Amino acid sequence: MSAAPKEFLEYIDAHKDAFIKRLTKAVAIKSVSGDAAYRQYVHDMGDFVESELKAVGVDTKLVPLGKQKLDGKEVELPPVVFGKLGEDKNKKTVLIYAHYDVQPALQSDGWGQDPFELKHDENDQLIGRGSTDDKGPLLGWINVLEAHKSLGIELPVNLRICFEGMEESGSVGLDDLIKAESGPGKYFDGVDCVCISDNYWLNDVTPCLTYGLRGITYFTVTISGPARDLHSGLFGGCVHEPLTDLFHLFSKLVTPEGKILIPKIKKLVDKLTPEERARYEKMDYSIEDINESVGADIAVSEDKVEILMKKMRYPSLSIHGIEGAFAEPGEKTVIPAKVSGKFSIRLVPSMTPENVNPLVKQFLEYEFLKLESKNTLKVEVTHGGKPYLADPDHWNFVAAAKATKAIYGKEPDLTREGGSIPVTLTFADALGVNVLLLPMGRGSDGAHSTNEKLDLSNYINGTKVLGTYLHEIAQATK
Amino acid sequence: MSAAPKEFLEYIDAHKDAFIKRLTKAVAIKSVSGDAAYRQYVHDMGDFVESELKAVGVDTKLVPLGKQKLDGKEVELPPVVFGKLGEDKNKKTVLIYAHYDVQPALQSDGWGQDPFELKHDENDQLIGRGSTDDKGPLLGWINVLEAHKSLGIELPVNLRICFEGMEESGSVGLDDLIKAESGPGKYFDGVDCVCISDNYWLNDVTPCLTYGLRGITYFTVTISGPARDLHSGLFGGCVHEPLTDLFHLFSKLVTPEGKILIPKIKKLVDKLTPEERARYEKMDYSIEDINESVGADIAVSEDKVEILMKKMRYPSLSIHGIEGAFAEPGEKTVIPAKVSGKFSIRLVPSMTPENVNPLVKQFLEYEFLKLESKNTLKVEVTHGGKPYLADPDHWNFVAAAKATKAIYGKEPDLTREGGSIPVTLTFADALGVNVLLLPMGRGSDGAHSTNEKLDLSNYINGTKVLGTYLHEIAQATK
Repeated sequence: MSAAPKEFLEYIDAHKDAFIKRLTKAVAIKSVSGDAAYRQYVHDMGDFVESELKAVGVDTKLVPLGKQKLDGKEVELPPVVFGKLGEDKNKKTVLIYAHYDVQPALQSDGWGQDPFELKHDENDQLIGRGSTDDKGPLLGWINVLEAHKSLGIELPVNLRICFEGMEESGSVGLDDLIKAESGPGKYFDGVDCVCISDNYWLNDVTPCLTYGLRGITYFTVTISGPARDLHSGLFGGCVHEPLTDLFHLFSKLVTPEGKILIPKIKKLVDKLTPEERARYEKMDYSIEDINESVGADIAVSEDKVEILMKKMRYPSLSIHGIEGAFAEPGEKTVIPAKVSGKFSIRLVPSMTPENVNPLVKQFLEYEFLKLESKNTLKVEVTHGGKPYLADPDHWNFVAAAKATKAIYGKEPDLTREGGSIPVTLTFADALGVNVLLLPMGRGSDGAHSTNEKLDLSNYINGTKVLGTYLHEIAQATK
Repeated sequence: MSAAPKEFLEYIDAHKDAFIKRLTKAVAIKSVSGDAAYRQYVHDMGDFVESELKAVGVDTKLVPLGKQKLDGKEVELPPVVFGKLGEDKNKKTVLIYAHYDVQPALQSDGWGQDPFELKHDENDQLIGRGSTDDKGPLLGWINVLEAHKSLGIELPVNLRICFEGMEESGSVGLDDLIKAESGPGKYFDGVDCVCISDNYWLNDVTPCLTYGLRGITYFTVTISGPARDLHSGLFGGCVHEPLTDLFHLFSKLVTPEGKILIPKIKKLVDKLTPEERARYEKMDYSIEDINESVGADIAVSEDKVEILMKKMRYPSLSIHGIEGAFAEPGEKTVIPAKVSGKFSIRLVPSMTPENVNPLVKQFLEYEFLKLESKNTLKVEVTHGGKPYLADPDHWNFVAAAKATKAIYGKEPDLTREGGSIPVTLTFADALGVNVLLLPMGRGSDGAHSTNEKLDLSNYINGTKVLGTYLHEIAQATK
């Protein structure tokens, strides 16, 4: 069934323990990119990744990205690890992306162990920070290359590697590098498709391929009144209070059921086709799945297809919080002088920050006028990115689907993600090729949470899928 | 004009420097009651106050209040300093209250100096933490007693002293002590009236006496949904979001102009009499005063009388903030799992926590039902106290008004405070006597802010007022 040689699959099974050891080593390097105090570990992790790649025959280079200001210090950005393997004009060239940095983790956050000491538990889960996000998938590729090298099997495609160390902290500098290295004579010249392994299955049992991502536009809405915080005993009732205004304003954005109330937003959403609807109907998902993943019976609909579409193909608006108001435990009787409310809208085709932002801004300004407040309003767009949609019938997806079927014995679901992975769009725009998201882990892995895990079966079978995918590409495009 | 002997007034002027020195010593003792690391200083300050009182002839005792848990440590509560001077049955007995603890202060908060080193600046302001709140007024009493003792003038009243060291941290233990010491044979037996010096003039030029305080009822409204915080990319649009519910709910509480929307609240407010209205009309206050004190042109009315009544005799509702939502700088795309919104209502006669709380609770629960959310609501009253209103025609107020007129040359305004000073009510309820609030400092003193100050003229004239007030009582009640 599989386009990959039988020896390759056997090798992966036989070297399970060595692969766990490799992941243990990687997890032990505390490559938290968001904290200046951990920056040296991120560099150490870049060195580790490079030496592992060299050892399996990859021609590597560390690309420096300059400095950044972090926690008040100027620190060196972690390098991007570039890699090249094969220059055969008769083969397809596949660019693979993963990241070697991780989210912060302290045992005191609620971990049942030292988060940087990979634990192989009795349920065959590999628990540790970065296990599933994204050290497991990254090492999956290295495992694949080790197997081919050890077995003397020629790689069926040319590989280009781009492993970054700043994904959890805004991928500072990566966009410019990708753009600079795209085009004739550049590092990514000749790339035929991209494979990103940095997301998750929809649930815990059915593999998926992801062909779409929602975009985002993030608003910071600041209402300012008095020159300083006031005591509500002294001034309550006498002045226009910024926080009261903000509650009125934000109550106009979205209904409790999630319906966005900003005019004309709905018209920007692409119409649903029967073919697309059929994909949601087919997906292995239920209302129990969502209630289980959020830990409460709070889904806005009892219809699985409705929920999947709300997650994948419709926009949503979430309020995140307020900066400047009283946020601690206890009772403070303050009238905050200046409050910044934050919300974001998830964008789907054909919404873009460009066509959405003016509608939101106009709406907020008009609704604020209606409040007749003497306070002042400032609306800022603090970040954003457009949505992504790939062609799931492209050979890149077909190869991944065949590989998945060969290893897991079932068709992967074709999903779209509710979140955004901005590098996807950067690759798609800069290279003009199909970008596939091929997840290794499960929906319950808890990527940014405490007790992040990767099931051993996903690590091993996921490694097999990655290797098989390369062989399927070669076969499909022969 | 003044009932106080001329030598007394001359003594106060002549000993200005010594009195500044006394305040300098007191400010230097960092008696911050809200921080376990400073607790020893609060005890030191209690000792200082006791020794100063002893030196001017007061029979003192330190009353221990037991222990409290603070910052995870068990610490000894600062004692209440009790004092007794005079047992003459032919004199009135006046109970005086002040506090010797202070708010926290760090130079890095924005002070132009070490906050615990009293600075006498070129504008004759005495700048330092506690200068006006409440060490200046407390020492004013000691200055008065020193003058009488040095001059050999008999005190015209019996004094009972109650100086506490926990006012800035909830007056832990004080209520019970006051109740326990009220009644026949107890420490406060025979007290005819109370004078509290712990508030401020309405503005910077006209003295005032305060005969009313608003009460408060503080609500913590918790909406819970998912078992943990969610990623808005993964779940935005799919679930009932607690923060969206909270914005809808709180937008129903009060209009941007400050009108409370909870039914039946308005009916609990006492009717305005023409006599009371005349007091507001007479007050030395303008719209410019409020705009200046808040640092912006945001008053909800252009009518001075309206604003004064909103501050003093009408209820108000202020939203203070949200616990559990994203409150830091930057952009986090979280759907908070559980949010606790906090607001409070300032109460005026005849509102009480008892008659207001059920109305608020019912309203919130009904409005939440209308949202048809699957999240859960919990409404808690986290603290409260009823409003206070004294008879401003009582001899206690008449004496204070005469004393003020004698020293400042103008009639004091009769004000009510928008905030609450809970000990006022405790004294009134426990002793059943008239309680006067006789402020020493000005509206612009910045009691809880950086660069807190007391004008030297207020310290000196205020001391004269306190002494003269005692003589006026004796004269008025002869």
